[in-house]
Amino acid sequence: MSNQVTVSKQTSGKVVTKVSKKLIVATLLYPDFELLDVFGPLEMFGMSRFINQGLELKFVSQTGGAVASSAGPISVCDYSFSDFESCDILMVPGGLGSRHEVNNKELIDWVQVQSDRATYVVSVCTGSAILAQAGVLSNHSATTNKIAFDWVQSFSTSTNWHKKARWVKSDNIYTSSGVSAGTDMSLAILEHLYGREYAEKVAHLTEYAWNDDPENDDFAI
Amino acid sequence: MSNQVTVSKQTSGKVVTKVSKKLIVATLLYPDFELLDVFGPLEMFGMSRFINQGLELKFVSQTGGAVASSAGPISVCDYSFSDFESCDILMVPGGLGSRHEVNNKELIDWVQVQSDRATYVVSVCTGSAILAQAGVLSNHSATTNKIAFDWVQSFSTSTNWHKKARWVKSDNIYTSSGVSAGTDMSLAILEHLYGREYAEKVAHLTEYAWNDDPENDDFAI
Repeated sequence: MSNQVTVSKQTSGKVVTKVSKKLIVATLLYPDFELLDVFGPLEMFGMSRFINQGLELKFVSQTGGAVASSAGPISVCDYSFSDFESCDILMVPGGLGSRHEVNNKELIDWVQVQSDRATYVVSVCTGSAILAQAGVLSNHSATTNKIAFDWVQSFSTSTNWHKKARWVKSDNIYTSSGVSAGTDMSLAILEHLYGREYAEKVAHLTEYAWNDDPENDDFAI
Repeated sequence: MSNQVTVSKQTSGKVVTKVSKKLIVATLLYPDFELLDVFGPLEMFGMSRFINQGLELKFVSQTGGAVASSAGPISVCDYSFSDFESCDILMVPGGLGSRHEVNNKELIDWVQVQSDRATYVVSVCTGSAILAQAGVLSNHSATTNKIAFDWVQSFSTSTNWHKKARWVKSDNIYTSSGVSAGTDMSLAILEHLYGREYAEKVAHLTEYAWNDDPENDDFAI
Protein backbone atom coordinates (compact mmCIF):
# COMPACT_ATOMS: atom_id res chain seq x y z
CA MET A 1 0.00 0.00 0.00
CA SER A 2 3.06 2.24 0.11
CA ASN A 3 2.19 3.65 -3.31
CA GLN A 4 -0.68 5.53 -1.67
CA VAL A 5 1.76 8.10 -0.31
CA THR A 6 3.92 10.33 -2.47
CA VAL A 7 6.35 12.84 -1.05
CA SER A 8 7.12 16.02 -2.97
CA LYS A 9 9.45 18.93 -2.21
CA GLN A 10 7.91 22.38 -2.37
CA THR A 11 9.73 25.48 -3.55
CA SER A 12 10.11 26.65 0.04
CA GLY A 13 12.25 23.63 0.69
CA LYS A 14 9.72 22.23 3.17
CA VAL A 15 8.83 18.64 2.44
CA VAL A 16 5.10 18.15 2.17
CA THR A 17 3.54 14.74 1.92
CA LYS A 18 0.49 14.42 -0.29
CA VAL A 19 -1.87 11.61 0.49
CA SER A 20 -4.29 10.60 -2.21
CA LYS A 21 -6.17 7.71 -0.56
CA LYS A 22 -7.47 6.64 2.82
CA LEU A 23 -4.54 5.26 4.78
CA ILE A 24 -4.82 2.22 7.02
CA VAL A 25 -3.37 2.45 10.52
CA ALA A 26 -2.86 -0.99 12.03
CA THR A 27 -2.18 -1.06 15.76
CA LEU A 28 -0.55 -4.15 17.20
CA LEU A 29 -2.28 -5.29 20.37
CA TYR A 30 -0.85 -7.81 22.84
CA PRO A 31 -1.92 -8.76 26.36
CA ASP A 32 -1.20 -5.99 28.89
CA PHE A 33 -0.82 -3.15 26.40
CA GLU A 34 -1.09 0.38 27.81
CA LEU A 35 -4.45 2.07 27.11
CA LEU A 36 -3.39 5.62 26.26
CA ASP A 37 -0.43 4.46 24.14
CA VAL A 38 -3.10 3.17 21.78
CA PHE A 39 -6.09 5.45 22.22
CA GLY A 40 -4.33 8.82 22.42
CA PRO A 41 -2.98 8.53 18.86
CA LEU A 42 -6.13 6.76 17.62
CA GLU A 43 -8.29 9.63 18.88
CA MET A 44 -6.28 12.04 16.74
CA PHE A 45 -6.04 9.71 13.75
CA GLY A 46 -9.75 8.92 14.00
CA MET A 47 -10.79 12.57 14.17
CA SER A 48 -9.27 13.01 10.71
CA ARG A 49 -12.47 11.57 9.23
CA PHE A 50 -14.21 14.88 9.90
CA ILE A 51 -11.71 16.77 7.73
CA ASN A 52 -10.85 14.59 4.73
CA GLN A 53 -11.05 10.91 3.83
CA GLY A 54 -9.34 10.25 7.16
CA LEU A 55 -7.42 7.25 8.39
CA GLU A 56 -8.90 3.80 8.86
CA LEU A 57 -8.16 2.25 12.24
CA LYS A 58 -7.56 -1.48 12.58
CA PHE A 59 -6.36 -3.71 15.43
CA VAL A 60 -4.22 -6.78 14.87
CA SER A 61 -2.86 -9.33 17.33
CA GLN A 62 -1.06 -12.63 17.11
CA THR A 63 -4.22 -14.74 17.33
CA GLY A 64 -6.92 -12.09 16.74
CA GLY A 65 -10.00 -11.80 18.94
CA ALA A 66 -10.20 -9.91 22.21
CA VAL A 67 -7.10 -8.53 23.94
CA ALA A 68 -7.01 -7.14 27.49
CA SER A 69 -5.03 -4.03 28.35
CA SER A 70 -2.90 -3.97 31.50
CA ALA A 71 -5.53 -1.82 33.26
CA GLY A 72 -8.32 -4.24 32.36
CA PRO A 73 -10.38 -2.86 29.43
CA ILE A 74 -10.62 -5.24 26.49
CA SER A 75 -10.42 -4.39 22.77
CA VAL A 76 -11.45 -6.50 19.79
CA CYS A 77 -9.02 -7.15 16.94
CA ASP A 78 -9.86 -6.97 13.23
CA TYR A 79 -7.06 -9.34 12.25
CA SER A 80 -4.75 -12.05 13.47
CA PHE A 81 -1.20 -12.23 12.07
CA SER A 82 -2.26 -14.98 9.67
CA ASP A 83 -5.05 -12.99 7.98
CA PHE A 84 -3.30 -9.61 7.96
CA GLU A 85 -1.65 -8.47 4.76
CA SER A 86 -0.14 -5.02 5.26
CA CYS A 87 -0.88 -1.45 6.31
CA ASP A 88 0.28 2.08 5.63
CA ILE A 89 1.05 3.02 9.23
CA LEU A 90 2.09 0.29 11.67
CA MET A 91 1.72 1.34 15.31
CA VAL A 92 3.29 -0.58 18.20
CA PRO A 93 2.18 0.54 21.67
CA GLY A 94 4.01 -0.04 24.93
CA GLY A 95 2.81 -1.41 28.21
CA LEU A 96 3.75 -4.01 30.79
CA GLY A 97 3.14 -6.71 28.19
CA SER A 98 6.07 -5.48 26.09
CA ARG A 99 8.38 -7.06 28.69
CA HIS A 100 7.01 -10.42 27.63
CA GLU A 101 6.59 -9.75 23.90
CA VAL A 102 10.24 -8.86 23.25
CA ASN A 103 10.85 -12.60 23.70
CA ASN A 104 7.93 -13.67 21.50
CA LYS A 105 9.70 -14.71 18.31
CA GLU A 106 6.55 -14.96 16.20
CA LEU A 107 5.52 -11.42 17.14
CA ILE A 108 9.00 -9.97 16.64
CA ASP A 109 9.27 -11.65 13.21
CA TRP A 110 5.85 -10.27 12.25
CA VAL A 111 6.86 -6.74 13.29
CA GLN A 112 10.02 -7.04 11.21
CA VAL A 113 8.11 -8.12 8.09
CA GLN A 114 5.30 -5.58 8.51
CA SER A 115 7.72 -2.73 9.21
CA ASP A 116 9.31 -3.39 5.83
CA ARG A 117 5.91 -3.29 4.13
CA ALA A 118 4.52 -0.21 5.92
CA THR A 119 5.08 3.35 4.75
CA TYR A 120 5.44 4.54 8.34
CA VAL A 121 6.37 2.70 11.52
CA VAL A 122 5.31 4.21 14.83
CA SER A 123 5.90 3.23 18.44
CA VAL A 124 4.69 4.72 21.71
CA CYS A 125 6.45 4.27 25.06
CA THR A 126 8.07 0.83 25.41
CA GLY A 127 6.71 -0.20 22.01
CA SER A 128 10.17 0.92 20.92
CA ALA A 129 11.66 -2.13 22.70
CA ILE A 130 9.66 -4.33 20.34
CA LEU A 131 10.80 -2.32 17.31
CA ALA A 132 14.40 -2.44 18.56
CA GLN A 133 14.29 -6.19 19.12
CA ALA A 134 12.94 -6.59 15.56
CA GLY A 135 15.92 -4.63 14.21
CA VAL A 136 13.69 -1.82 12.95
CA LEU A 137 15.58 0.86 14.90
CA SER A 138 19.08 -0.21 13.87
CA ASN A 139 21.13 2.85 12.86
CA HIS A 140 18.13 5.13 13.50
CA SER A 141 17.43 7.79 16.11
CA ALA A 142 14.68 6.99 18.61
CA THR A 143 13.27 7.64 22.05
CA THR A 144 11.14 5.77 24.58
CA ASN A 145 9.55 5.85 28.04
CA LYS A 146 11.90 7.62 30.46
CA ILE A 147 11.37 5.23 33.36
CA ALA A 148 12.19 2.16 31.22
CA PHE A 149 14.95 3.87 29.23
CA ASP A 150 17.87 1.60 30.14
CA TRP A 151 15.88 -1.55 29.52
CA VAL A 152 14.63 -0.41 26.10
CA GLN A 153 17.96 0.83 24.76
CA SER A 154 19.55 -2.52 25.60
CA PHE A 155 17.72 -3.99 22.61
CA SER A 156 19.54 -1.89 20.01
CA THR A 157 23.08 -0.64 20.55
CA SER A 158 23.29 0.94 17.08
CA THR A 159 20.36 3.29 17.82
CA ASN A 160 20.91 6.93 18.75
CA TRP A 161 18.64 7.01 21.82
CA HIS A 162 17.35 10.50 22.75
CA LYS A 163 16.93 11.09 26.49
CA LYS A 164 15.28 14.47 25.92
CA ALA A 165 12.57 14.19 23.31
CA ARG A 166 8.78 14.12 23.29
CA TRP A 167 9.15 12.11 20.10
CA VAL A 168 11.78 11.40 17.44
CA LYS A 169 11.31 11.12 13.67
CA SER A 170 13.99 9.15 11.88
CA ASP A 171 13.20 8.75 8.19
CA ASN A 172 9.83 6.96 8.16
CA ILE A 173 10.04 5.85 11.81
CA TYR A 174 8.38 7.78 14.64
CA THR A 175 9.06 6.80 18.26
CA SER A 176 7.57 8.63 21.25
CA SER A 177 8.36 8.90 24.92
CA GLY A 178 6.03 7.46 27.54
CA VAL A 179 2.27 7.06 27.24
CA SER A 180 0.90 10.62 26.74
CA ALA A 181 3.74 11.61 24.41
CA GLY A 182 2.23 9.41 21.71
CA THR A 183 -0.70 11.81 21.40
CA ASP A 184 1.57 14.78 20.67
CA MET A 185 3.48 12.65 18.16
CA SER A 186 0.31 11.53 16.39
CA LEU A 187 -0.55 15.17 15.61
CA ALA A 188 2.96 15.63 14.19
CA ILE A 189 2.29 12.64 11.95
CA LEU A 190 -0.96 14.24 10.77
CA GLU A 191 0.97 17.48 10.14
CA HIS A 192 3.48 15.54 8.06
CA LEU A 193 0.72 13.82 6.08
CA TYR A 194 -1.75 16.66 5.61
CA GLY A 195 -0.14 19.92 6.75
CA ARG A 196 -0.06 22.21 9.77
CA GLU A 197 -3.58 23.59 9.53
CA TYR A 198 -5.01 20.07 9.41
CA ALA A 199 -3.20 18.96 12.58
CA GLU A 200 -4.24 22.14 14.40
CA LYS A 201 -7.86 21.54 13.41
CA VAL A 202 -7.75 18.02 14.87
CA ALA A 203 -6.25 19.40 18.10
CA HIS A 204 -9.00 22.02 18.23
CA LEU A 205 -11.78 19.48 17.62
CA THR A 206 -10.49 17.40 20.51
CA GLU A 207 -9.80 20.43 22.76
CA TYR A 208 -6.21 19.18 22.99
CA ALA A 209 -3.36 21.49 24.06
CA TRP A 210 -0.81 20.12 21.59
CA ASN A 211 2.85 20.17 22.60
CA ASP A 212 4.06 20.50 19.01
CA ASP A 213 7.78 20.75 19.79
CA PRO A 214 9.47 17.33 19.90
CA GLU A 215 12.30 18.81 21.98
CA ASN A 216 9.96 20.26 24.61
CA ASP A 217 10.12 17.39 27.08
CA ASP A 218 9.24 17.94 30.73
CA PHE A 219 10.13 14.36 31.53
CA ALA A 220 13.67 14.27 30.13
CA ILE A 221 16.25 12.28 32.08
CA MET B 1 -20.93 0.88 47.66
CA SER B 2 -21.04 4.51 48.70
CA ASN B 3 -19.98 3.56 52.23
CA GLN B 4 -16.48 2.91 50.87
CA VAL B 5 -15.79 6.66 50.78
CA THR B 6 -15.75 8.87 53.82
CA VAL B 7 -15.07 12.58 53.67
CA SER B 8 -13.40 14.33 56.58
CA LYS B 9 -12.42 17.96 57.14
CA GLN B 10 -8.82 18.62 58.12
CA THR B 11 -7.75 21.34 60.51
CA SER B 12 -6.50 23.40 57.54
CA GLY B 13 -10.07 23.60 56.33
CA LYS B 14 -9.20 21.65 53.18
CA VAL B 15 -11.55 18.75 52.59
CA VAL B 16 -9.67 15.51 52.11
CA THR B 17 -11.40 12.35 51.02
CA LYS B 18 -10.15 9.14 52.51
CA VAL B 19 -10.73 6.02 50.52
CA SER B 20 -10.46 2.76 52.38
CA LYS B 21 -11.27 0.23 49.63
CA LYS B 22 -10.79 -0.32 45.92
CA LEU B 23 -13.34 1.83 44.11
CA ILE B 24 -15.19 0.64 41.03
CA VAL B 25 -15.34 2.99 38.05
CA ALA B 26 -18.11 1.97 35.65
CA THR B 27 -17.98 3.63 32.23
CA LEU B 28 -21.18 3.66 30.19
CA LEU B 29 -20.51 2.65 26.59
CA TYR B 30 -22.95 3.17 23.71
CA PRO B 31 -22.50 2.91 19.93
CA ASP B 32 -20.38 5.77 18.54
CA PHE B 33 -18.80 6.84 21.82
CA GLU B 34 -15.65 8.99 21.54
CA LEU B 35 -12.41 7.06 22.20
CA LEU B 36 -10.40 9.55 24.27
CA ASP B 37 -13.43 10.58 26.35
CA VAL B 38 -13.19 7.07 27.74
CA PHE B 39 -9.53 6.12 27.57
CA GLY B 40 -7.94 9.39 28.70
CA PRO B 41 -9.54 9.18 32.16
CA LEU B 42 -9.20 5.38 32.29
CA GLU B 43 -5.45 5.64 31.65
CA MET B 44 -5.14 7.86 34.73
CA PHE B 45 -7.56 5.85 36.86
CA GLY B 46 -5.89 2.61 35.76
CA MET B 47 -2.39 3.84 36.59
CA SER B 48 -3.50 4.18 40.21
CA ARG B 49 -2.92 0.45 40.65
CA PHE B 50 0.82 1.11 40.78
CA ILE B 51 0.44 3.40 43.79
CA ASN B 52 -2.24 1.96 46.05
CA GLN B 53 -5.15 -0.47 45.73
CA GLY B 54 -6.18 1.51 42.68
CA LEU B 55 -9.49 1.77 40.89
CA GLU B 56 -11.22 -1.13 39.18
CA LEU B 57 -12.33 -0.33 35.63
CA LYS B 58 -15.56 -1.77 34.24
CA PHE B 59 -17.58 -1.18 31.07
CA VAL B 60 -21.36 -1.35 30.98
CA SER B 61 -23.78 -0.92 28.09
CA GLN B 62 -27.50 -1.39 27.56
CA THR B 63 -27.18 -4.93 26.20
CA GLY B 64 -23.57 -5.77 27.16
CA GLY B 65 -21.14 -7.34 24.71
CA ALA B 66 -19.02 -5.45 22.19
CA VAL B 67 -19.56 -1.74 21.49
CA ALA B 68 -17.96 0.16 18.60
CA SER B 69 -16.61 3.68 19.05
CA SER B 70 -17.36 6.34 16.45
CA ALA B 71 -13.82 6.00 15.07
CA GLY B 72 -14.14 2.23 14.71
CA PRO B 73 -12.29 0.47 17.57
CA ILE B 74 -14.47 -1.92 19.55
CA SER B 75 -14.50 -2.45 23.33
CA VAL B 76 -15.97 -5.32 25.32
CA CYS B 77 -18.40 -4.66 28.19
CA ASP B 78 -18.33 -6.36 31.56
CA TYR B 79 -22.02 -5.77 32.20
CA SER B 80 -25.38 -5.07 30.58
CA PHE B 81 -27.88 -2.83 32.39
CA SER B 82 -29.76 -5.90 33.63
CA ASP B 83 -26.78 -7.52 35.38
CA PHE B 84 -25.20 -4.32 36.72
CA GLU B 85 -25.80 -3.40 40.34
CA SER B 86 -23.96 -0.18 41.17
CA CYS B 87 -20.56 1.50 41.18
CA ASP B 88 -18.62 4.12 43.09
CA ILE B 89 -17.79 6.34 40.12
CA LEU B 90 -20.17 6.43 37.17
CA MET B 91 -18.55 7.83 34.01
CA VAL B 92 -20.55 8.90 30.95
CA PRO B 93 -18.47 9.72 27.85
CA GLY B 94 -19.52 11.83 24.90
CA GLY B 95 -19.35 11.17 21.23
CA LEU B 96 -21.53 11.29 18.15
CA GLY B 97 -23.68 8.55 19.65
CA SER B 98 -24.82 10.84 22.46
CA ARG B 99 -27.06 12.60 19.89
CA HIS B 100 -29.02 9.37 19.64
CA GLU B 101 -28.81 8.24 23.26
CA VAL B 102 -30.44 11.38 24.73
CA ASN B 103 -33.64 9.96 23.24
CA ASN B 104 -33.05 6.42 24.52
CA LYS B 105 -35.45 6.25 27.49
CA GLU B 106 -34.05 2.99 28.89
CA LEU B 107 -30.52 4.42 28.93
CA ILE B 108 -31.58 7.76 30.41
CA ASP B 109 -33.59 6.00 33.14
CA TRP B 110 -30.59 3.79 33.92
CA VAL B 111 -28.30 6.82 34.20
CA GLN B 112 -30.77 8.48 36.56
CA VAL B 113 -30.93 5.43 38.85
CA GLN B 114 -27.18 4.76 38.80
CA SER B 115 -26.32 8.41 39.41
CA ASP B 116 -28.32 8.24 42.62
CA ARG B 117 -26.46 5.11 43.70
CA ALA B 118 -22.93 6.26 42.78
CA THR B 119 -20.67 8.27 45.06
CA TYR B 120 -19.39 10.32 42.11
CA VAL B 121 -20.91 11.03 38.70
CA VAL B 122 -18.56 12.04 35.90
CA SER B 123 -19.12 13.09 32.30
CA VAL B 124 -16.72 13.96 29.50
CA CYS B 125 -17.61 16.12 26.50
CA THR B 126 -21.23 15.62 25.35
CA GLY B 127 -21.73 12.95 28.00
CA SER B 128 -23.14 15.92 29.93
CA ALA B 129 -26.13 15.98 27.55
CA ILE B 130 -27.00 12.50 28.77
CA LEU B 131 -26.60 13.54 32.42
CA ALA B 132 -28.68 16.67 31.78
CA GLN B 133 -31.45 14.71 30.08
CA ALA B 134 -31.49 12.34 33.07
CA GLY B 135 -31.98 15.31 35.41
CA VAL B 136 -28.64 14.73 37.12
CA LEU B 137 -27.39 18.26 36.40
CA SER B 138 -30.52 20.09 37.60
CA ASN B 139 -29.52 23.04 39.80
CA HIS B 140 -25.83 22.13 39.43
CA SER B 141 -22.91 23.84 37.70
CA ALA B 142 -21.49 22.04 34.68
CA THR B 143 -19.58 22.35 31.42
CA THR B 144 -19.36 20.46 28.15
CA ASN B 145 -17.81 20.34 24.68
CA LYS B 146 -17.47 23.88 23.32
CA ILE B 147 -18.55 23.04 19.78
CA ALA B 148 -21.78 21.37 20.97
CA PHE B 149 -22.43 23.83 23.79
CA ASP B 150 -25.83 25.16 22.69
CA TRP B 151 -27.17 21.70 21.99
CA VAL B 152 -26.05 20.30 25.35
CA GLN B 153 -27.31 23.14 27.50
CA SER B 154 -30.78 22.82 25.95
CA PHE B 155 -31.27 19.66 28.02
CA SER B 156 -31.14 21.43 31.39
CA THR B 157 -32.22 25.04 31.82
CA SER B 158 -31.66 24.99 35.59
CA THR B 159 -27.95 24.21 35.16
CA ASN B 160 -25.29 26.91 35.51
CA TRP B 161 -23.36 26.13 32.30
CA HIS B 162 -19.72 27.31 32.29
CA LYS B 163 -18.41 28.45 28.91
CA LYS B 164 -14.88 28.84 30.23
CA ALA B 165 -13.84 25.75 32.17
CA ARG B 166 -11.63 22.75 31.58
CA TRP B 167 -13.91 20.96 34.00
CA VAL B 168 -16.46 21.81 36.69
CA LYS B 169 -16.98 20.12 40.06
CA SER B 170 -20.44 20.59 41.55
CA ASP B 171 -20.83 18.62 44.77
CA ASN B 172 -20.20 15.00 43.71
CA ILE B 173 -20.62 15.69 39.99
CA TYR B 174 -17.67 16.32 37.67
CA THR B 175 -18.28 17.44 34.06
CA SER B 176 -15.48 18.20 31.60
CA SER B 177 -15.18 20.09 28.35
CA GLY B 178 -14.47 18.32 25.08
CA VAL B 179 -12.56 15.06 24.65
CA SER B 180 -9.04 15.78 26.01
CA ALA B 181 -10.35 17.81 28.95
CA GLY B 182 -11.56 14.59 30.56
CA THR B 183 -7.96 13.52 31.15
CA ASP B 184 -7.14 16.69 33.10
CA MET B 185 -10.35 16.24 35.09
CA SER B 186 -9.57 12.61 35.92
CA LEU B 187 -6.35 13.68 37.64
CA ALA B 188 -8.34 16.23 39.66
CA ILE B 189 -10.62 13.38 40.74
CA LEU B 190 -7.58 11.36 41.83
CA GLU B 191 -6.32 14.42 43.72
CA HIS B 192 -9.69 14.68 45.46
CA LEU B 193 -9.65 10.99 46.36
CA TYR B 194 -6.01 10.46 47.29
CA GLY B 195 -4.27 13.85 47.48
CA ARG B 196 -2.07 16.10 45.37
CA GLU B 197 1.10 14.01 45.47
CA TYR B 198 -0.78 10.96 44.28
CA ALA B 199 -2.25 12.74 41.24
CA GLU B 200 1.13 14.21 40.35
CA LYS B 201 2.70 10.76 40.54
CA VAL B 202 0.13 9.38 38.09
CA ALA B 203 0.80 12.31 35.72
CA HIS B 204 4.53 11.63 35.98
CA LEU B 205 4.15 7.89 35.34
CA THR B 206 2.18 8.65 32.18
CA GLU B 207 4.48 11.55 31.11
CA TYR B 208 1.38 13.73 31.07
CA ALA B 209 1.60 17.54 31.23
CA TRP B 210 -1.39 18.02 33.52
CA ASN B 211 -3.42 21.21 33.17
CA ASP B 212 -4.44 21.22 36.82
CA ASP B 213 -6.39 24.51 36.74
CA PRO B 214 -10.07 23.99 35.86
CA GLU B 215 -10.31 27.64 34.80
CA ASN B 216 -7.34 27.43 32.41
CA ASP B 217 -9.29 26.76 29.24
CA ASP B 218 -7.75 27.50 25.84
CA PHE B 219 -10.97 26.50 24.14
CA ALA B 220 -13.39 28.79 25.97
CA ILE B 221 -16.20 30.31 23.94
